[in-house]
Amino acid sequence: MYTGPLDCSKDKNTNLGTSIVNSVSVNQYEPICALATASGVGAISVVRVSGARCIELVDHCFKGANLTLAESHTVHFGTIRQNKTIIDEVLVTVFRSPRSFTREDSVEISCHGSDFIVRQILKLLVLGGARIARPGEFTQRAFLNGQFDLVQAEAVADLIAADSAASHRTALTQLRGGFSKKLQLLREELIHFASLVELELDFGEEDVEFAQRDDLRQLIYKLQATIHPLIESFDYGNALKDGIPVAIIGSPNVGKSTLLNALLNEEKAIVTEIAGTTRDVIEDTIVLEGVKFRFIDTAGIRVTQDIVESLGIERSRRAMEQADVVLMLFDSEATKQEVKVLVAGLPKEKKVIWVRNKVDLTTGAPKLPGDSISISAKTQSGLEALKSILLQQVQTNAAQDTVVTNQRHYEHLLKTSQALDEVLSGLDSGITGDFLAQDIRLALYHLGEITGTIVSDDLLANIFSKFCIGK
Amino acid sequence: MYTGPLDCSKDKNTNLGTSIVNSVSVNQYEPICALATASGVGAISVVRVSGARCIELVDHCFKGANLTLAESHTVHFGTIRQNKTIIDEVLVTVFRSPRSFTREDSVEISCHGSDFIVRQILKLLVLGGARIARPGEFTQRAFLNGQFDLVQAEAVADLIAADSAASHRTALTQLRGGFSKKLQLLREELIHFASLVELELDFGEEDVEFAQRDDLRQLIYKLQATIHPLIESFDYGNALKDGIPVAIIGSPNVGKSTLLNALLNEEKAIVTEIAGTTRDVIEDTIVLEGVKFRFIDTAGIRVTQDIVESLGIERSRRAMEQADVVLMLFDSEATKQEVKVLVAGLPKEKKVIWVRNKVDLTTGAPKLPGDSISISAKTQSGLEALKSILLQQVQTNAAQDTVVTNQRHYEHLLKTSQALDEVLSGLDSGITGDFLAQDIRLALYHLGEITGTIVSDDLLANIFSKFCIGK
Repeated sequence: MYTGPLDCSKDKNTNLGTSIVNSVSVNQYEPICALATASGVGAISVVRVSGARCIELVDHCFKGANLTLAESHTVHFGTIRQNKTIIDEVLVTVFRSPRSFTREDSVEISCHGSDFIVRQILKLLVLGGARIARPGEFTQRAFLNGQFDLVQAEAVADLIAADSAASHRTALTQLRGGFSKKLQLLREELIHFASLVELELDFGEEDVEFAQRDDLRQLIYKLQATIHPLIESFDYGNALKDGIPVAIIGSPNVGKSTLLNALLNEEKAIVTEIAGTTRDVIEDTIVLEGVKFRFIDTAGIRVTQDIVESLGIERSRRAMEQADVVLMLFDSEATKQEVKVLVAGLPKEKKVIWVRNKVDLTTGAPKLPGDSISISAKTQSGLEALKSILLQQVQTNAAQDTVVTNQRHYEHLLKTSQALDEVLSGLDSGITGDFLAQDIRLALYHLGEITGTIVSDDLLANIFSKFCIGK
Repeated sequence: MYTGPLDCSKDKNTNLGTSIVNSVSVNQYEPICALATASGVGAISVVRVSGARCIELVDHCFKGANLTLAESHTVHFGTIRQNKTIIDEVLVTVFRSPRSFTREDSVEISCHGSDFIVRQILKLLVLGGARIARPGEFTQRAFLNGQFDLVQAEAVADLIAADSAASHRTALTQLRGGFSKKLQLLREELIHFASLVELELDFGEEDVEFAQRDDLRQLIYKLQATIHPLIESFDYGNALKDGIPVAIIGSPNVGKSTLLNALLNEEKAIVTEIAGTTRDVIEDTIVLEGVKFRFIDTAGIRVTQDIVESLGIERSRRAMEQADVVLMLFDSEATKQEVKVLVAGLPKEKKVIWVRNKVDLTTGAPKLPGDSISISAKTQSGLEALKSILLQQVQTNAAQDTVVTNQRHYEHLLKTSQALDEVLSGLDSGITGDFLAQDIRLALYHLGEITGTIVSDDLLANIFSKFCIGK
């Protein structure tokens, strides 16, 4: 039984149809198995097995070394066999509880990278008594066995999906504790106050105050000071994850796609050079210095000689509304009328970058309503300057270390904040302890749902079903 | 320096622009790295590093344990860092020379399954002095360091590509020695004779015979007895790898696709049940009891009431020519004329299975020129019997354990056999020792090319370039 330094806060059960799942004891559940690496052709594939007696289970179809005697974190060469038929030559790694990802006994079988072989091995493990793991079930077990809290578990999925330095950093920060540890500490302080307030209730008629109201107020200020920036970071965090939406507005012949390709090609070349692999091209997404930008398709916006089609304007307006940043692209041919109409369609308080394209061809240009940058998408001049300006638009938000990217966390943070506001206004109006306790309890509930200190089985199932199999 | 039981035959250099590459000493080449698992989203990805000082190289960006002190085949948890920035939490496995796949010092980094993270780690390793591995370079090093011969090295690629039990068994047999060990032994006997014949040449005028001509003849018979079945197995071996071509001939409404779907669905259901994953459906390929069948598309063959379109007949003829087995599908509606025309188009000596479909609907049927099997693709009756008959058609070939599936091996076996025939006819006509020696040398050369005892650098580069990266 593992008795290491785990989160062992003993919560009052808040009686909201939930259960406390974090506990210091490690449970070894029934053995599960799954392919842990991506499916498809690679040099090797890894099959992961975890659960009670899983080392014996693998040992039964393995010939090479006696795995049941193997120490944790050791690797063994041998063959996987079905009776006397060899299925593959493999490397088997043994992890003993609690020194594994799930904290259960675990085995990783590294075989040749063929889906056929993987299927044969999984079949054999199932015959031996294991069951194919549900999506996210390994991570779920890690959570249930106290390996990490819920925010950290969810960060595992985010980390796998991360495709830019910024989203990767966010996921990794959360995986390594991030804001959940801070929230956890503040939550424990709040539990202390909740106990004191509830103790007052036991003395009912006596009008005692165990919980210092001023101290409680200070704690709530502290909590709000932590929670508010997290709530505010959500929009930015989401943008980091999905890409910061940028609309390039301009008529088709103004050089929009040339600009996009110029930016794309440059970045793609770098990627290819390093990884030595060919990747599927995701059109219209560019990662600049680790920040992903997602270009909103504005194809179809057409500005004719003197009449601007209302349909085009409408589309362009929608694109601009969705965007965090608008790139207004003009060439020297643009008429005053065109500029005026497009500018009129700009949503208020939107970040706009005015770009003069085709400076290699002409020097004349329309008067623009703001500072502009001159580029030539074709000769690539001015591109570096444009990139810096794009990055500047988002860097103001980036100073913050911890950002919230998860809708679920966002919602519970919002509800925690609302409950804390209720507590504050209750303190202001001097309401009775029992009402105060109720609001504090609600705040505690929502804080607990974030880190998974209190979670319902339904929520757990829902969260982990979004994982890939083998994680 | 490794001095284990390696293939250390010392060949006479045959002076054919080739070099002897197998040797007992293990070389540690410059460090290389690559993603070893399939690209894409999985729970984990594995980056493989191999070569001189690669453990120090990884240790430099790893925090958790001192890898330079780690024993072979041990696993270590920690973080990969670029300066102070954490890239990922990983498990690192250390393999020390010669106890690794390449026989060099090797490291496997098991990180979260994200292409982004993999790229960051590879970047870091390249910055540290490693280089991205060329396709097949790990296997090439394993071959150069005497881990296995060329046939075995090539079997690694076949094993990864195997998608049926039969092709998998063939690849695994070859990986584990297969026919190359046998050829290697016979080759050594032949070398012995070659030396004796060449010794005779040194005695020029003296008309001595060190090499017993009868013993040489016996050895060549033995060699041919080994080589001939291998050459003959090539067609079958290729069919195993790519699927045994089967043409289903019949007019569109005779139930061809219903039959194919009935076979497909049944097999697919089994696969899905076991692996728990969704796979891309490969149309028209079915694995029955481990043997892959590839159905040749005969869509478009149309037999009208009384005139059979010449185009349809032509297509059907081509399909039948390509096929190993022809499934002739009729229903009870088929006219004598239709049967007659299609039968007339059958290539001679082709395996044909006559199938009467739709037995659930009617009982009447045309007279067919051979034994027929009655099925209903719709109600699935008779399917099991049809499968057995299909399997019987190929099982006659399957008795043999070792089959040749590689075009290169096939060509060299053929040329070896031709050279041996020349030696035999030389013996018959009593030609002089120097001509005899030349033919023997040619046979030795081709045998050596198969196992890689003698290979040119170009050939090596060509073979390994067909591998996937990371292998």
